[in-house]
Amino acid sequence: MADENHKQVSVAEFFEKNRHLLGFNNPSKALLTSVKEAVDNSLDACEDANILPEIEVKIQELKKGKYRMIVEDNGPGLNRKVLEKAFGSLLFGSKFRSIGGKQGRGQQGIGISAVILYGQLTTGKPAKITSRTSNEKEAREYVMHIDVKTNEPDVLASDVKNWKKEHGTRVEVEMEGKYVSTKQSPYEFIKQTAVVNPHAKITYTDPEGKKHKFPRVVDKLPRKAKELKPHPSGVEYGLFKRMAKDTSARSTKSFLTNDFDKVGGGTANTILETAKVEGQIMPKLLSDDQLHEMHEAIKTTKIMNPSTDCLSPIGAEALAKSLESEYDLEFSKAISRNPTVYRGFPFQVEVAIGYGGELDQEGSAKLNRFSNKVPLLYEEGSCALTKGVKSITWKSYGLHNSSGSMPTGPAVIVIHIASTWVPFTSESKAAVSNYPAISKEIKLAIQEAGRSLQSYVRKKRKAGLEEEKRQKFKGYATEVAGAVAKLIAKDSYKIKKAELEKSTTKIEKSLLATAETMYSSGKELDETEEEDE
Amino acid sequence: MADENHKQVSVAEFFEKNRHLLGFNNPSKALLTSVKEAVDNSLDACEDANILPEIEVKIQELKKGKYRMIVEDNGPGLNRKVLEKAFGSLLFGSKFRSIGGKQGRGQQGIGISAVILYGQLTTGKPAKITSRTSNEKEAREYVMHIDVKTNEPDVLASDVKNWKKEHGTRVEVEMEGKYVSTKQSPYEFIKQTAVVNPHAKITYTDPEGKKHKFPRVVDKLPRKAKELKPHPSGVEYGLFKRMAKDTSARSTKSFLTNDFDKVGGGTANTILETAKVEGQIMPKLLSDDQLHEMHEAIKTTKIMNPSTDCLSPIGAEALAKSLESEYDLEFSKAISRNPTVYRGFPFQVEVAIGYGGELDQEGSAKLNRFSNKVPLLYEEGSCALTKGVKSITWKSYGLHNSSGSMPTGPAVIVIHIASTWVPFTSESKAAVSNYPAISKEIKLAIQEAGRSLQSYVRKKRKAGLEEEKRQKFKGYATEVAGAVAKLIAKDSYKIKKAELEKSTTKIEKSLLATAETMYSSGKELDETEEEDE
Repeated sequence: MADENHKQVSVAEFFEKNRHLLGFNNPSKALLTSVKEAVDNSLDACEDANILPEIEVKIQELKKGKYRMIVEDNGPGLNRKVLEKAFGSLLFGSKFRSIGGKQGRGQQGIGISAVILYGQLTTGKPAKITSRTSNEKEAREYVMHIDVKTNEPDVLASDVKNWKKEHGTRVEVEMEGKYVSTKQSPYEFIKQTAVVNPHAKITYTDPEGKKHKFPRVVDKLPRKAKELKPHPSGVEYGLFKRMAKDTSARSTKSFLTNDFDKVGGGTANTILETAKVEGQIMPKLLSDDQLHEMHEAIKTTKIMNPSTDCLSPIGAEALAKSLESEYDLEFSKAISRNPTVYRGFPFQVEVAIGYGGELDQEGSAKLNRFSNKVPLLYEEGSCALTKGVKSITWKSYGLHNSSGSMPTGPAVIVIHIASTWVPFTSESKAAVSNYPAISKEIKLAIQEAGRSLQSYVRKKRKAGLEEEKRQKFKGYATEVAGAVAKLIAKDSYKIKKAELEKSTTKIEKSLLATAETMYSSGKELDETEEEDE
Repeated sequence: MADENHKQVSVAEFFEKNRHLLGFNNPSKALLTSVKEAVDNSLDACEDANILPEIEVKIQELKKGKYRMIVEDNGPGLNRKVLEKAFGSLLFGSKFRSIGGKQGRGQQGIGISAVILYGQLTTGKPAKITSRTSNEKEAREYVMHIDVKTNEPDVLASDVKNWKKEHGTRVEVEMEGKYVSTKQSPYEFIKQTAVVNPHAKITYTDPEGKKHKFPRVVDKLPRKAKELKPHPSGVEYGLFKRMAKDTSARSTKSFLTNDFDKVGGGTANTILETAKVEGQIMPKLLSDDQLHEMHEAIKTTKIMNPSTDCLSPIGAEALAKSLESEYDLEFSKAISRNPTVYRGFPFQVEVAIGYGGELDQEGSAKLNRFSNKVPLLYEEGSCALTKGVKSITWKSYGLHNSSGSMPTGPAVIVIHIASTWVPFTSESKAAVSNYPAISKEIKLAIQEAGRSLQSYVRKKRKAGLEEEKRQKFKGYATEVAGAVAKLIAKDSYKIKKAELEKSTTKIEKSLLATAETMYSSGKELDETEEEDE
């Protein structure tokens, strides 16, 4: 093993070779992942800056297998220094948080630069990034590569650009891709994104030039997600030790109360007493043994659950409105559960059910899964959200399913999980792990929305049965009227044929009027009564 | 989006947070992954240096949930500079190859440093690495951390150590873990590793102190894997462009012939003519358009398949021997297919089937999957190797299965795929993707081994049936003898009872002797013939 064989590899080179780790497994998934990363970025940037998002997405086919993606937003824009690194270097960004957490779409500062990396690998073309902040007089377009060997931006040109926007960012990347129009298409991703981001206005132009508009449904930004200090029960020993070395706190007690969520003076004292450590010691001077004792003491100390006001749910009302704006429905119901906690991380489940209207009467109900307002389009089978839907006995809620399978009927089910750290089953962020606490919340939310669905479906079925009866009655009315007319005619035997017909019509009308009144007033007739008439 | 929110994150910090990407999802998997990374490293190092591997693995339980892993090899050792980086920095190593490829267990230069990263995160303890090269007079022990913020080694101590080995490396890491003894245990991993690495001697001491020895079965190192130049059809445009910029070739023609596999003068000329590019141009001066034309021309030019002598299979004989040394079997058969190619990458499939002996008569056959001589213990269901086994109609090969499921019966099936780039379904490297070319080879290999199995099982069944007949015959012999004796007795009516018994025994003996002779000479009797006697 000679020295010359060994070398340091840049993180860009690593992910270029291992791009399946980031969702660039194949051309159709790569195109979808690119749209996802760009749109996620735009939404996060707008919300961070308290701007109602307006996003335009375009996918243009350049030739078979080659596409250009353009995503433009009205976000705050980025200044030059930050822009170059944010787009031209992997693992640079505002989003990576090794400690604590905050609900966000992206978490790693890796997504959009991975798109640029993939584009240049498959086409050799640089990306074009245009940006303007509200402090700048004009927009600037950066033509740039990522230098794979150094993981640094390589800016080829940066010219002033005439741009109508006062602030915002525009990303243009060419790449190899494959355009599909299945359940895993960019169109589906954008449509579903619109459903769970009703405060966003999104326009999408597909490769055939067709423009799809997803208007803003609510004019209010969602509650802003708050940055959270780490909860002591979620911090592993190695990290705990590093925090003690890096803290700006001057005493061990203030290290505990300042640097952690839910640790007040009383809790800090309990931890210190259990660990037999003096609160005044400078954290940097704590020995390994002392740190260990403290870390063990945290496990046995009763500490309040993490704060949950850091989450930014969609909200039941907005979710229902949005679902109705995307689908032509007869009925919808949305539920936003209260936040709760798994393994030290706060999370919250929301469920909406839409029914009838344009939805397919036959076949499986649609299921749309979301995590932190991002649609999940892959690995449906292994996701806790899917498992939650399948675990329900849908007969009790107006649909049907055989045990352990999806319900059938004209329904769309939306499930959203918001968390500071969604437990994905893998790096591709496509499916949520099946934690008991999460499964329970999903079940409760579905059942709550399901009860409303059931009462709607029951009413509808009753109304349907009555309408059927009415139609049946109408069908008999002519015959009944004729018979009655003939009975009357018996008395004046020589009645003319024309008069008989007239009488029949008159009697029929009167019968129908009676029937209408009867049904409108809600009086019920069972089948036998009806047939007796 | 203020500047101060943005920061560059080190790759160590990224993988500390995203350690599920590297197989550290949970305590039991983390312990297994650690053993796997260390053993893979040792085997690769020994083979690279032409040393027959001797590896000792120890797992010690320190307290509930805390383990110490020690892996010691007789490899070439590492000098100080390389050692510190190889163990103390992620993405440093001899294994990462962005271009071309070579069959190896590790590929990323990330595994063993990730183990150290995981150990220090969960216990706060440094790793201890001991190493000695054959040039060094004494061994040295390095006590070291990885500095997560910089991804650099942080050596706390490095002392001379009294070590009996003349060369080798010893890794000692403490970590959180969970010891299981299921199909996904360290024991199972080591046992299976021994099966496919018959040239290695491995000793494993489990947490209860029990020593398991896996002796060397063959005394020859496997054919050494060769480093391969990239095959032109597997190089994407962005990489092709970078190769042209970085090449040391002075002309475009020599760039094609020197830097790629299977491109000779003729092939280079065809590519250049199709692309309308002059062969004398310096590669650095090629325009984007010219590079594009060349890359397109490669697609339409007939180029020989990649070299396949770069692969290092186990070999049929070694595989069969090894399987027999691990299991007490009645029968075994191993097949090593010829190398072939998928998507521009060479690969080779080997299959072994063992039957009978200690194997369970009832239930599913055992399936042991391997890629580049590393056991695959997770994600069995989604793996092309498993799918290959399930796609076979096993009735034709002496076992049974219902369509699309695992065969049942006393069998163990070993499948090994060797490749310069095994197409794993995900980063966790647990399952192989279902490429048609790969599935076909797997099927053919199983069928070939299956035919031998079938003929063994058929013979055994026949022998079994005959033994059954013989037993049946023996059962009747006494009665028949008695009847014959009575027939004889009729003639001398007053025969004594004692004499009748004596006659019966005599006749029975004679009948049995006849039967033995009949069966031993291979003469077959069908049931009816037998009953007629």
